[in-house]
Amino acid sequence: MELPSNLFDALQRIQGFLPETGAVLHEPRFVGNESKYVQDCIATGWVSSVGSYVDRFESDLAAYTGVKRAVVVANGTVALQVALELADVRPGDEVLIPTLSFIATANAVMHAGATPHFVDSEEKSLGIDVPKLSAYLDSVAEKTSVGVINKKTGKRIAAIVPVHIFGHPVDLDALLDLGRKWGLVVLEDAAESLGSLYQGKHTGSFGRLSAVSFNGNKIVTSGGGGAILTQDEALGKRAKHLTTTAKIPHAWEFVHDEVGYNFRLTNLAAALGCAQLEQISTFVEKKRRLADEYRSLLKGISGFKLLQEPSYSKSNYWLNALVLDTSFQKHRDDFIQRAHEMKVGVRPVWKLLHSLKMYRDCPRSDLSVAEKLERSVICLPSSPFLAGGRRT
Amino acid sequence: MELPSNLFDALQRIQGFLPETGAVLHEPRFVGNESKYVQDCIATGWVSSVGSYVDRFESDLAAYTGVKRAVVVANGTVALQVALELADVRPGDEVLIPTLSFIATANAVMHAGATPHFVDSEEKSLGIDVPKLSAYLDSVAEKTSVGVINKKTGKRIAAIVPVHIFGHPVDLDALLDLGRKWGLVVLEDAAESLGSLYQGKHTGSFGRLSAVSFNGNKIVTSGGGGAILTQDEALGKRAKHLTTTAKIPHAWEFVHDEVGYNFRLTNLAAALGCAQLEQISTFVEKKRRLADEYRSLLKGISGFKLLQEPSYSKSNYWLNALVLDTSFQKHRDDFIQRAHEMKVGVRPVWKLLHSLKMYRDCPRSDLSVAEKLERSVICLPSSPFLAGGRRT
Repeated sequence: MELPSNLFDALQRIQGFLPETGAVLHEPRFVGNESKYVQDCIATGWVSSVGSYVDRFESDLAAYTGVKRAVVVANGTVALQVALELADVRPGDEVLIPTLSFIATANAVMHAGATPHFVDSEEKSLGIDVPKLSAYLDSVAEKTSVGVINKKTGKRIAAIVPVHIFGHPVDLDALLDLGRKWGLVVLEDAAESLGSLYQGKHTGSFGRLSAVSFNGNKIVTSGGGGAILTQDEALGKRAKHLTTTAKIPHAWEFVHDEVGYNFRLTNLAAALGCAQLEQISTFVEKKRRLADEYRSLLKGISGFKLLQEPSYSKSNYWLNALVLDTSFQKHRDDFIQRAHEMKVGVRPVWKLLHSLKMYRDCPRSDLSVAEKLERSVICLPSSPFLAGGRRT
Repeated sequence: MELPSNLFDALQRIQGFLPETGAVLHEPRFVGNESKYVQDCIATGWVSSVGSYVDRFESDLAAYTGVKRAVVVANGTVALQVALELADVRPGDEVLIPTLSFIATANAVMHAGATPHFVDSEEKSLGIDVPKLSAYLDSVAEKTSVGVINKKTGKRIAAIVPVHIFGHPVDLDALLDLGRKWGLVVLEDAAESLGSLYQGKHTGSFGRLSAVSFNGNKIVTSGGGGAILTQDEALGKRAKHLTTTAKIPHAWEFVHDEVGYNFRLTNLAAALGCAQLEQISTFVEKKRRLADEYRSLLKGISGFKLLQEPSYSKSNYWLNALVLDTSFQKHRDDFIQRAHEMKVGVRPVWKLLHSLKMYRDCPRSDLSVAEKLERSVICLPSSPFLAGGRRT
């Protein structure tokens, strides 16, 4: 199919703005202390599961996000899994998560032994639609002496996991109110939103526990990696213990006091993470500038809007996104195909989780907004170094 | 308590052999291409979950160990967990493992949803006592149409996991025979034995699937890391898919077809691993030399013996170990305490798994040999660069 001229115009402007060689969706660039810190690990031999960069990465993260404790782990998926387990999500429970999210959100729930219960999103933040969830819970859930019960399945609903999609914060005040009303714990999936603020405070600092990711495509990377954040020091201590094989510290004895995990982040990875975190203010600033630049660039073209941070937030704009008007949704795939031919590394949003075969039979609310968003969202190349546009 | 003079003599000779600054149990040293390869990752930006070092580490490992497929993952624990799952170990099953092993062996069984069923070890290899296991199975197990059933618990026994303790191979022919007799799958926990040969072939190449570790204390390290080895290409393909979020490859679409794991090893870690693996022949040679040197050094001192590779094997001697005679077992802790004061980083063997509180109620055979070994084994500093002794 031929692309309509407005979409083709948008694509041409984007191509002209990006480097001549094109751009992938998101990639890191290491121009700070990355080499130095990583070399330090190699030179000293401290590359493995303990080391000064592990300790420093944890304290730097806690300081940056304003939480009491950060525990670094192998990746964001296992961070969320452990957060769920520490929040007393138990096998057989259901966990409310948006269907519009990366697979890790649902997998972490499964790995904790629970079942995802999919809920809808709203168009401003792309995150959980809180009023809609509230109405849904009124219809489907019941507060009992053993917790909130899903009247349809008979299972306990144990937690709500908001995801700050593309870095844009969910309306946390409203969500936390809803959690309190029902006695449901809120755990933030802040994998994409390190550096994003809700009402002036960092995402990841609101949930009982939160999960962050440092995968290679994130605003700050440690190669692979993640962290559990919490304001509760006892939970933070438990998170550290559980993710480091539950070993009781001793100079030579090997005693473990529960079934723990080997989810440790290596000192080598933490060294990279420390160097990256030193630069996060610059990254956030550049990514916000890039969002402004896309907005100027595409001004006056009809058929879509650019996703903007919700009014209550300051977003890291992890990924910039176009949202196609209804009448242009049918051109989504052609746009993506054509963009790739032009070396513009766009992508659609993830396939909705409830539509994947292993999650098809999970409980869910009406998901019509997410379904509409799936047809209309296109993510744009968003690496921080793209800010400023093509260098001549 | 005062150390008996023979043990004190041994300790003094060891101290005199090791560097003046002392020695920890095992540590890496990076004198090959480690810096170069890691810098290459930083310079190119390829630090995350895909990259050329990941591919190369997998093919180098397969070539070195003689298996059809190696899949690198975050660590040895998750390698074993996934190996168990791919071998059709199911929730509720029991898995036969030695009580004399690192916690990871038991935890991996639990993470796969199964229960460890502890068996005894023998004194030559410190690994599973196969004749004793055979007699035990005759008494406790029953072959039925739904598999091997533990008559006491009524549960299915699904697999046997031999562990090549300190690098010394278990008697694999005998164990594989026993597995065949009962229809039980054998999965090798080769976390400690990369480079060790059984009848001239690499440990890790015998089990349906095997787990290897590249933790910082292993003969070859990637900081943290592990691998699943298999001779079955279809299982290898499944292992790769399952450990990389079960995503169906596509340039921009995100479709996953089962509940996968994010157990990927990063390209940064794989780069370190590649450089280390280039040197493994030297490491094995040095570690075998160190074993010889300890033997010469301690010759003529009574009260213990040094553990030697079983006759059917060529061991990597990952850890050298003293085994105290019965009458000297009471001095174990004093020896360890004194050694640490002298900066000789010895350690006892792990606390037996069945004695840890979370594994106390698991099924088990008589474990008297393991119990004796726990009281008598002391591991000695075994880093490859210690070979040759103190430099003057």
